[in-house]
Amino acid sequence: MKILFTDRSMDYTGEQLAPHWIYRNFNILGDAMVAFSGAAQVSLDHMVDLADVLESAHIYSPLMLHFLVEHFDTNLELAVYRQRMLIVAVKEELEQFEVPVTRFGDDLYVNRAKLSVSIATSSVVSTLIHVGLNIQTEGTPVKTVGLTELGISDIKAFAENVMLRYKKELEQIYQARCKVRGIGIDC
Amino acid sequence: MKILFTDRSMDYTGEQLAPHWIYRNFNILGDAMVAFSGAAQVSLDHMVDLADVLESAHIYSPLMLHFLVEHFDTNLELAVYRQRMLIVAVKEELEQFEVPVTRFGDDLYVNRAKLSVSIATSSVVSTLIHVGLNIQTEGTPVKTVGLTELGISDIKAFAENVMLRYKKELEQIYQARCKVRGIGIDC
Amino acid sequence: MKILFTDRSMDYTGEQLAPHWIYRNFNILGDAMVAFSGAAQVSLDHMVDLADVLESAHIYSPLMLHFLVEHFDTNLELAVYRQRMLIVAVKEELEQFEVPVTRFGDDLYVNRAKLSVSIATSSVVSTLIHVGLNIQTEGTPVKTVGLTELGISDIKAFAENVMLRYKKELEQIYQARCKVRGIGIDC
Amino acid sequence: MKILFTDRSMDYTGEQLAPHWIYRNFNILGDAMVAFSGAAQVSLDHMVDLADVLESAHIYSPLMLHFLVEHFDTNLELAVYRQRMLIVAVKEELEQFEVPVTRFGDDLYVNRAKLSVSIATSSVVSTLIHVGLNIQTEGTPVKTVGLTELGISDIKAFAENVMLRYKKELEQIYQARCKVRGIGIDC
Amino acid sequence: MKILFTDRSMDYTGEQLAPHWIYRNFNILGDAMVAFSGAAQVSLDHMVDLADVLESAHIYSPLMLHFLVEHFDTNLELAVYRQRMLIVAVKEELEQFEVPVTRFGDDLYVNRAKLSVSIATSSVVSTLIHVGLNIQTEGTPVKTVGLTELGISDIKAFAENVMLRYKKELEQIYQARCKVRGIGIDC
Amino acid sequence: MKILFTDRSMDYTGEQLAPHWIYRNFNILGDAMVAFSGAAQVSLDHMVDLADVLESAHIYSPLMLHFLVEHFDTNLELAVYRQRMLIVAVKEELEQFEVPVTRFGDDLYVNRAKLSVSIATSSVVSTLIHVGLNIQTEGTPVKTVGLTELGISDIKAFAENVMLRYKKELEQIYQARCKVRGIGIDC
Repeated sequence: MKILFTDRSMDYTGEQLAPHWIYRNFNILGDAMVAFSGAAQVSLDHMVDLADVLESAHIYSPLMLHFLVEHFDTNLELAVYRQRMLIVAVKEELEQFEVPVTRFGDDLYVNRAKLSVSIATSSVVSTLIHVGLNIQTEGTPVKTVGLTELGISDIKAFAENVMLRYKKELEQIYQARCKVRGIGIDC
Repeated sequence: MKILFTDRSMDYTGEQLAPHWIYRNFNILGDAMVAFSGAAQVSLDHMVDLADVLESAHIYSPLMLHFLVEHFDTNLELAVYRQRMLIVAVKEELEQFEVPVTRFGDDLYVNRAKLSVSIATSSVVSTLIHVGLNIQTEGTPVKTVGLTELGISDIKAFAENVMLRYKKELEQIYQARCKVRGIGIDC
Repeated sequence: MKILFTDRSMDYTGEQLAPHWIYRNFNILGDAMVAFSGAAQVSLDHMVDLADVLESAHIYSPLMLHFLVEHFDTNLELAVYRQRMLIVAVKEELEQFEVPVTRFGDDLYVNRAKLSVSIATSSVVSTLIHVGLNIQTEGTPVKTVGLTELGISDIKAFAENVMLRYKKELEQIYQARCKVRGIGIDC
Repeated sequence: MKILFTDRSMDYTGEQLAPHWIYRNFNILGDAMVAFSGAAQVSLDHMVDLADVLESAHIYSPLMLHFLVEHFDTNLELAVYRQRMLIVAVKEELEQFEVPVTRFGDDLYVNRAKLSVSIATSSVVSTLIHVGLNIQTEGTPVKTVGLTELGISDIKAFAENVMLRYKKELEQIYQARCKVRGIGIDC
Repeated sequence: MKILFTDRSMDYTGEQLAPHWIYRNFNILGDAMVAFSGAAQVSLDHMVDLADVLESAHIYSPLMLHFLVEHFDTNLELAVYRQRMLIVAVKEELEQFEVPVTRFGDDLYVNRAKLSVSIATSSVVSTLIHVGLNIQTEGTPVKTVGLTELGISDIKAFAENVMLRYKKELEQIYQARCKVRGIGIDC
Repeated sequence: MKILFTDRSMDYTGEQLAPHWIYRNFNILGDAMVAFSGAAQVSLDHMVDLADVLESAHIYSPLMLHFLVEHFDTNLELAVYRQRMLIVAVKEELEQFEVPVTRFGDDLYVNRAKLSVSIATSSVVSTLIHVGLNIQTEGTPVKTVGLTELGISDIKAFAENVMLRYKKELEQIYQARCKVRGIGIDC
């Protein structure tokens, strides 16, 4: 899996959660992960979490660190497991900064303030994951916390560490799958 | 998924990592998870981690809390993801006790002392996961730490909380998979 | 799998054969089955059976008992097997009423009169099944028979029994899959 | 799928439920189904239904019509669906003889007497199905009924009709899978 | 798999690379392959190879022999393997004519002149393959070679031989998969 | 995929066609391919091609170049496709030496003399491929040809080129799978 942090600032509108968005914009082919920062404003049209759609929940943040991941298989259940591992990677990277983070499913909280938004979905050729972490929080619709407030000032370094953790996790999972002996018939 | 803590003390020898071990011993049919305590002593014959076999590494602990999980599908990669979620569930339960745990892949450490052993493998009908957490640590072949030392005295309550976390995690993953809209063709 | 009979009368137009139609309308998340009654009138635009499309066959019934099922996996072949089990469940429920039903594939006939229409298809996130059983038959394009004529007067009770049969069948299939020992290498 | 009725009488001992048994004995390569008659006597060693093993249930019949099916994929859940379709094929063939059969899962009963035994399992290369129908019933451990008693005298013709029904069912399922239009993204 | 050469001349515009195009136009249901000749002119809208889209590469040929294949499973990786086997079938058929062909991935060259275009993709119900071989080459955007120039005058016979090779290859692959014994656990 | 040519001479007995043989002997973890030279003598016990077993065909060669490949997925059909691509890679490498090779399925012939033996199979954790090419041919049970006779004197260089071709082919197949746009619903 290739990883890239781009300095290009882009707002996340949900349109980035599309097959080949990484390939079309960064010429990276195959399983890949890109991080960038920008506002988040997702209209109902581009929301794929139907629980949010049914509640007409808004997604807005003035400035977020975004991770966009594409895996070229179409197993949506597996994509959700991967999304969880990515959320865990963020949590464990924050623990390096002694930030006490609590995870509920795919959400991260610090002292009951919400740090993240996230979704995983599938298309006919791939699965896609988005994770957004608030950097700043003015105007967000619920009680939130941002990386700045948590003392994370070097966003690029933080993003790259998270991406390295996720990439290494997936490599270790592959190795764990390859080094294990199967089990015979029970009798 | 059904979960069960049994007071029956049993040593973990690796023979429990077998298809239908739970069904044969506890009459629980289908995806299931059982927790029990006992020593751990796995002979090379029953070790399925070939990295350990190649290094002739021993697995021994005088007393461990064991989790044995069986999922009736045969996707070994998915089983490793599930194993990671179970390890994360243990870590997050320990965080409730303010124990600062570090995870490396499927291993848990507290202050560089090893708390856990774990493996995931597959048979022709199912995948199997074992996680063992030291309760006591006398005579272990590497530097270890145990739950007793960490202040976890009610092993049964701890085990049940971990199982509930894991069960809930998997239910939430299923719900996340079901509530998301797919993505159309890129153009 | 959750099941629901709704008293809300709705015409079946083919638009109900859509991912998350059950979740959006009844707030039931995950594998689910809903039964309702109403006319059936499917335009060519919403017909997914291409054999019918190529023959410009019409689907019309003044009043039908409809079953709409969604399974959150994307195995279309498996969905067709499930559709067959649902058709068999209808046939076997009718046998409780001493109605001699003949099945041809996914069609049910009583004395050469057509009782049912049915289709199974897939989207990028799920598979979907529709089964419609005539209650009344005025104006149908082929020779048909309806549940009223067959002496089934309590449509709700009949629908619920069919849904319970289908739900139980799938549970038993899962149990059968879990209780069986695998077979070793031939030699 | 190739089908064959063999006049060669063979006792069913459970050893026939093995990968390539059909290929080795009848030189038929690929998905196939063979029917033969003979006693049934399965020792615990060769029983793969663990529910029976746990209850030490015996399988014995002095004379049965046996169907042995092998499908060269390894999806055990799908194999159980196919087993159910085969049981339904037997039931529907018996209905041609006006025999009122009741199905419970993979068991067939006539007036509360058991007609059949059946199992589906998997190996590392294929899935296997066995269905046995009593022809005669002397000495069976539970209340049973046999084909002779039901008026089915031409066992070969009956067996061939069942095999043709099953083969046709699977062909129709394939056609149903191929003729259906997919469903787009919900919006 | 059914195969058909049609004398009906049709231009390939990319619109033929669609689920059920064969069924709708030739009434052939299930896995199938159709060959026809005609110009090739694919607009950017209908191009599915994003590498070509990103480079705004044009696909044009005044006259090509086209192969259109549909397989009713949705494994895109497998579809690419099948595409390679089809390209190899073309190469090996040309070797019967002593034409020295070089293959680079899914491209065929004769003396550094390009003979072919090809793509494999997937929809929600099937995978699709197109292979086009130049018959004539006037006006093509890169250096090309055509079947006429290579001495292949009977296009229909050539097409049918390629289709028979591909069909036979897939049958042999199925047989190879069915005749092999699995391997047990390593110890 | 990692590739390795080893100078260590080893006879191929069929025992090498085992999960983790590469990992245990060369400490290479994950998808891998190893080439070595040595005699080939496979006893019936270790033959996995049942067509050969049924004909009691012997596999013997005094000196062969062997390729042993392990892929850590369990899709046997895919493994046979990969085996074919490996055979094609050998054929295309020989074409660099102007050797006119004919392929029948997974067999290579030069002027009707057999150059190769090959098999693909699966275990519960992986799929395995063996390809053996005669270097010398004294005492072989059928008419054979060897690499020496064909003018291939640098066996190591030849083996490495074949492995590079196979590795590159699989990388290109992955890239082809990733760069293609999916196809929407037909209408």
